[in-house]
Amino acid sequence: MTLILTFLGKGGTGRSTVAIAAAHKLSTQGQRVLLICQEAGPALSLLLGTELGGSPSAISLADSAEGSSFQAVQLRSAELLDQNWEKLKNLEAQYLRDPFFKAVYGQELSIVPGMDDFLALNAIREYTESQQYDVIVHDGPGNQSSLRMWGAIGGIDWYFRRFKKVFQDSQFYRSISPFIAPITGAILSSGSSGDIWNRPETQSVESMVAKGKALVHDPMQLRAYVVTTDDAVAIAQGKYLWSAAQQIGLTVAGILVNARSGQADTASADEAFAPLPVAALPYRAEGSPWQSLADALPALDQPVAVPSPMSVDIASSTVKLFLPGFKKTQVKLTQYGPEVTVEAGDQRHNLSLPPALNGRSVTGAKFQDGYLIISFG
Amino acid sequence: MTLILTFLGKGGTGRSTVAIAAAHKLSTQGQRVLLICQEAGPALSLLLGTELGGSPSAISLADSAEGSSFQAVQLRSAELLDQNWEKLKNLEAQYLRDPFFKAVYGQELSIVPGMDDFLALNAIREYTESQQYDVIVHDGPGNQSSLRMWGAIGGIDWYFRRFKKVFQDSQFYRSISPFIAPITGAILSSGSSGDIWNRPETQSVESMVAKGKALVHDPMQLRAYVVTTDDAVAIAQGKYLWSAAQQIGLTVAGILVNARSGQADTASADEAFAPLPVAALPYRAEGSPWQSLADALPALDQPVAVPSPMSVDIASSTVKLFLPGFKKTQVKLTQYGPEVTVEAGDQRHNLSLPPALNGRSVTGAKFQDGYLIISFG
Repeated sequence: MTLILTFLGKGGTGRSTVAIAAAHKLSTQGQRVLLICQEAGPALSLLLGTELGGSPSAISLADSAEGSSFQAVQLRSAELLDQNWEKLKNLEAQYLRDPFFKAVYGQELSIVPGMDDFLALNAIREYTESQQYDVIVHDGPGNQSSLRMWGAIGGIDWYFRRFKKVFQDSQFYRSISPFIAPITGAILSSGSSGDIWNRPETQSVESMVAKGKALVHDPMQLRAYVVTTDDAVAIAQGKYLWSAAQQIGLTVAGILVNARSGQADTASADEAFAPLPVAALPYRAEGSPWQSLADALPALDQPVAVPSPMSVDIASSTVKLFLPGFKKTQVKLTQYGPEVTVEAGDQRHNLSLPPALNGRSVTGAKFQDGYLIISFG
Repeated sequence: MTLILTFLGKGGTGRSTVAIAAAHKLSTQGQRVLLICQEAGPALSLLLGTELGGSPSAISLADSAEGSSFQAVQLRSAELLDQNWEKLKNLEAQYLRDPFFKAVYGQELSIVPGMDDFLALNAIREYTESQQYDVIVHDGPGNQSSLRMWGAIGGIDWYFRRFKKVFQDSQFYRSISPFIAPITGAILSSGSSGDIWNRPETQSVESMVAKGKALVHDPMQLRAYVVTTDDAVAIAQGKYLWSAAQQIGLTVAGILVNARSGQADTASADEAFAPLPVAALPYRAEGSPWQSLADALPALDQPVAVPSPMSVDIASSTVKLFLPGFKKTQVKLTQYGPEVTVEAGDQRHNLSLPPALNGRSVTGAKFQDGYLIISFG
């Protein structure tokens, strides 16, 4: 199984530097490591001293031990879009007698907001499933948009389920359903007019989504570290991102404090991020060795002992969400039909409830010591 | 007319600090200024010393002159999504006898990648059209994803035009067109089965897109400044973003170099960003006055004398694109059917050609002194 490490934090706090040191540390421990750069631009290549390509290539840092190296890749959305467009066209051609998209070349398509994230998610999924790497170190934007990306797996799943129901319940669907069979019969080369929701492709997407949701909730498959300095704004922004990560069920496994010179002072971070473990990192001047930074990092691939973002107690019919950093007034809980929705800090998520609680009514909620405790009737 | 100022640059180079100083400077000059914070989290509020809300509120900096103040707002995607969802439902209810979406509450919807950007674009459009502000100072992520957002107006327009044609040309469209009239007749309360592409709503969207495209290309309506420090990685990343901005036709009006202490050294920036004007900014310690930083900023709302991202010479049938920072080998030019596509630095855009050149074949191209010069037959 591949473990994905990702880093959250205000820009300029040294996330990319930490990502390189992490890749170095884990590779010297014998792990097969892939460092993935999601941000466009030369910054990570300059830090590595090697220009990264769109396919993984081996990196040996100047001061790395004999034989220790890792792979690194720069995600390029334009290339990924072309490749995925070809796959989509092939899939379409298998099912439609007269495909829509064959006339459109991938090379014509420009990249609009959101695409980078979905292409990156898919690339990370493919690298994970290749089983060539023990650890993937992900150097992304590290802000709310990183959390939107990891949260998208559950978000999209919800849209699919919800709008499938809306569509099936609609008068429109009932009006056109007599027409649907002949149309699908005419365009689906299989000739089968079976229920599109039960086709094998739909089910394979559903199983992919289930795997993705499990991944986000399992700190042995995906975990984040918050990177900060001792600057008050950087700590506040880091604390916000820590809280926001909980909402999508992503475990923040620890805090890494970069020094702006000498050794980092962790006093403010210790206080802001309790009970998470806080590691002080030494300042690394440009061009100097990576080893001391790597040595100062905690064990990044070991089981974590931090509060779980969500815990369920079936016996007492309660769900406990860990939402550090928010005040009671900043958290909103609502229930519309079967969905229980938690909103805080410009994020809104529908809870993934276990079958025993699914569909039951919320009868009470309290906010206590950073935990939102929800009771079901 | 409202001028929008936005800032590009590596994280941690002081973009938010510059945005506040810019809002302060322009408001002391009598301009009606709105500072828009697009990044989630408390960072900008902490710098301002005031917690920002989801609606504009007046900000007076501690050291601002009597009566000088500006408005500021934190964009909150969850709120914006709810408001826009209600508008969409109202629009739908006007046209469909049996609306799809009425059963779905805005408060149920989670935010998936790309939504933040489209919601922010729409909010900025509304603030611009309100005519309440002379200048909007936009504090966004400042990276490639900011450029995706500004570029989205042209990008989405292209998708709409291209796939409309693909759809209309398809066998599928011809197969189902006999069914379309009765279906649309049944669901459109107007009873008209007219061409959906010529409906007033479609045309109003098209005119909005045309206005948006004009805005991105006019530095008196939208311009960017690159913010950097004297750090080599920050300068390289800034140069990449400068080049990338040209590709979407966004003018970078100048370079602002923040000092990490004392006064900024602009030697490296002068060289990297020639021929753009480079301004050296003084270091501002947390909690100290804003005035000296504001004084050091150039005139942010005056006409600019920098190379235009794209210039067209109809007489010689040539188009000149200014693509600083790229090597010849990094730029790819292709023509598929009527579209001329330029790809560089993980961005790909179809040129908006004037009618005189539209649809004509590319007969030659050369790359010279940072300019791509394309000749049409």
